[in-house]
Amino acid sequence: MHPADPFLFQLFFIFVWAKLFGEVFERLTLPAVVGEILAGILVGPYGARLVVPDEAIYAIAEIGAIFLLFTVGLETNPKDLIRVGATSVYTALAGIALPFILGFGYMVMRHDPRHEAVFVAAAMVATSVGVTARVLGDMQILQTLSARIILGAAVIDDVLGMIVLGLVSSTATTWAPIIVTSLEAIGFALLMLFYAPRMVRRMEPGLQRMSTHDAPLIIALAICLGLSYAAVRIGMAAIIGGFFAGLAFADYSPRWNLRPRASAINEFLAPFFFFSMGARLDIGLFDRRLIISALILSALAFVSKLIGCGLPVLHAGWKNALKVGVGMTPRGEVGLIVALVGLETNVISASTYALLVFMTAATTLIAPPLMKLVFREDAQAQPALVERRSGMV
Amino acid sequence: MHPADPFLFQLFFIFVWAKLFGEVFERLTLPAVVGEILAGILVGPYGARLVVPDEAIYAIAEIGAIFLLFTVGLETNPKDLIRVGATSVYTALAGIALPFILGFGYMVMRHDPRHEAVFVAAAMVATSVGVTARVLGDMQILQTLSARIILGAAVIDDVLGMIVLGLVSSTATTWAPIIVTSLEAIGFALLMLFYAPRMVRRMEPGLQRMSTHDAPLIIALAICLGLSYAAVRIGMAAIIGGFFAGLAFADYSPRWNLRPRASAINEFLAPFFFFSMGARLDIGLFDRRLIISALILSALAFVSKLIGCGLPVLHAGWKNALKVGVGMTPRGEVGLIVALVGLETNVISASTYALLVFMTAATTLIAPPLMKLVFREDAQAQPALVERRSGMV
Repeated sequence: MHPADPFLFQLFFIFVWAKLFGEVFERLTLPAVVGEILAGILVGPYGARLVVPDEAIYAIAEIGAIFLLFTVGLETNPKDLIRVGATSVYTALAGIALPFILGFGYMVMRHDPRHEAVFVAAAMVATSVGVTARVLGDMQILQTLSARIILGAAVIDDVLGMIVLGLVSSTATTWAPIIVTSLEAIGFALLMLFYAPRMVRRMEPGLQRMSTHDAPLIIALAICLGLSYAAVRIGMAAIIGGFFAGLAFADYSPRWNLRPRASAINEFLAPFFFFSMGARLDIGLFDRRLIISALILSALAFVSKLIGCGLPVLHAGWKNALKVGVGMTPRGEVGLIVALVGLETNVISASTYALLVFMTAATTLIAPPLMKLVFREDAQAQPALVERRSGMV
Repeated sequence: MHPADPFLFQLFFIFVWAKLFGEVFERLTLPAVVGEILAGILVGPYGARLVVPDEAIYAIAEIGAIFLLFTVGLETNPKDLIRVGATSVYTALAGIALPFILGFGYMVMRHDPRHEAVFVAAAMVATSVGVTARVLGDMQILQTLSARIILGAAVIDDVLGMIVLGLVSSTATTWAPIIVTSLEAIGFALLMLFYAPRMVRRMEPGLQRMSTHDAPLIIALAICLGLSYAAVRIGMAAIIGGFFAGLAFADYSPRWNLRPRASAINEFLAPFFFFSMGARLDIGLFDRRLIISALILSALAFVSKLIGCGLPVLHAGWKNALKVGVGMTPRGEVGLIVALVGLETNVISASTYALLVFMTAATTLIAPPLMKLVFREDAQAQPALVERRSGMV
């Protein structure tokens, strides 16, 4: 009778399965996010098929990714990001060059076509700050030096990764549109870092005059959605817009009480994002040969980020280098988007697509436990952790 | 390049248009909700076509309706609801009988087929507590006697309305399934009112032991989604489940800080619900004859609820009777669902569908300004209104 039946079914069971696996993982002292992804793999369309998400769920998952990055942005101080800027830039650059070279080299060695090798190399490039930020946030250590270098580098890395994707997927034969896309992306990032926080400050008197109930939250949400759309329009991932929107409001977040309320939206939407990531993995595609290739590619993806991103931080001690290196390894949604674009434009084959999805999943699954390990002492230095964990804030 | 382009476009512009119209209406001292619905009529698919919502947006609108009622439930004290119970029951019963009789009578007078008349009568029955609750919430007067009678009556009314819909749309020739549906609905309501709050109290120690970050909010959200799904499964509207979930957690809402965080989710999702309500109105269908019929039907819908729901409250003074009568007039989403079911099962014609949509829209549009008028003195008795309005909570 009611048309919403299958949708509400998915909504309820995805939320419950994701949270159930998350709770089990937390009790095993593993990060909840891995559990939420695993829920998608095991009960999703390629697993037990208990819940098969449809388009509406994937749409909600996408909003979930945007609000995840919005919340991360709110917790990031733009001034700190600019202060760790130089290290973050070097980390991002080396962390892009090495995976690209190793990914390209391995695919050429396997006698894959050059254009396919270039695409795989591009998918190796972009770190998924979403997974990393969630783990750092769960551990309450977003304020440490390594965490800020990672978040700064991941932003630059995302922007550069999207430019690389633009380059390899561009059908243009001239350089002009590629240069335009690159300049747009860099301009967007600089604008949001240096100008947006000032703009928010100027908006404040106007916000207080507004009649709408709870105007600051509404405006922040509108700008979050607007920048996500703007990011997509100039050829970047929507999540980058969400992150910058959070960054722009970070200074005013305590005053307008934005963080706990953005977190509430995030608590509701994020499980759909992580479940969907797992639900997209078809484990049936893998035969022995593909598994070996996938394992080698995943190892290259891991090592290249570890070394590429760790080396520029070595001046701050090997422990910080290790933290940054490990924190930059997960690929996640950007890698999946690159794989999807490649498949939809027929540039890569179904088996190369499976390779990329495996690599994305492997780096995403292995990074959180390793991060828990290398960041352990930072988390122990947080005395308020236990009380804040219990959620009785 | 990015597949999310049209979706993010709709997401951003629906939110902005809804909030823009809402702000303009607030400044004209009209309720924001009318502005948000009007935004959907004017810029939606039957208006200027600036934004045409697709399935994903309607899905989000549906979650918006659920969380709207969840937030209302959180702000309602079950004990108060039970205390005003008797008055609410009489209000609901009289408020269902009168619209049904007048609606049926008018359609038969117009020489419409009997089965079509029964359907129109059913669509006249259910008050939309969503619109009313939003207006009462905006005015910060959810705690007044009339508001509690309205909310109590609207819940009973929704349950009874759904039973009436089940009766008229049932293809069963025997009484058994109809009786089962009716008993399920009444049992669900009684269970949630008397047993659920006690269940939540017993869950508390377990919640504190959970490892998941912010367990009480997660459990409340899961139960909200679960009860919405359960409501649909036993043949009621999903929003009834959302309302009861809020009611179950109302006692613990201050302690677990649920209200501001549920409100944040609501602030984000509700505009999509109200915009979508407007976007579904095709103003092009109306010729002079249909407009006259629609105006008469709307007037009957308004007067029948005003008298039917006002009379049982007359013992508390004519002012309270007027408040309850006016507060019960908007039909909204339940009326629209009835109209949709009728159209999809070919029981009603396209013009009868247009009649019902007009009636729903008219009662929804006229109720909030009238409510602002009759509830004015209650709002003025709230000294904290101005500060809380500015959103700097």
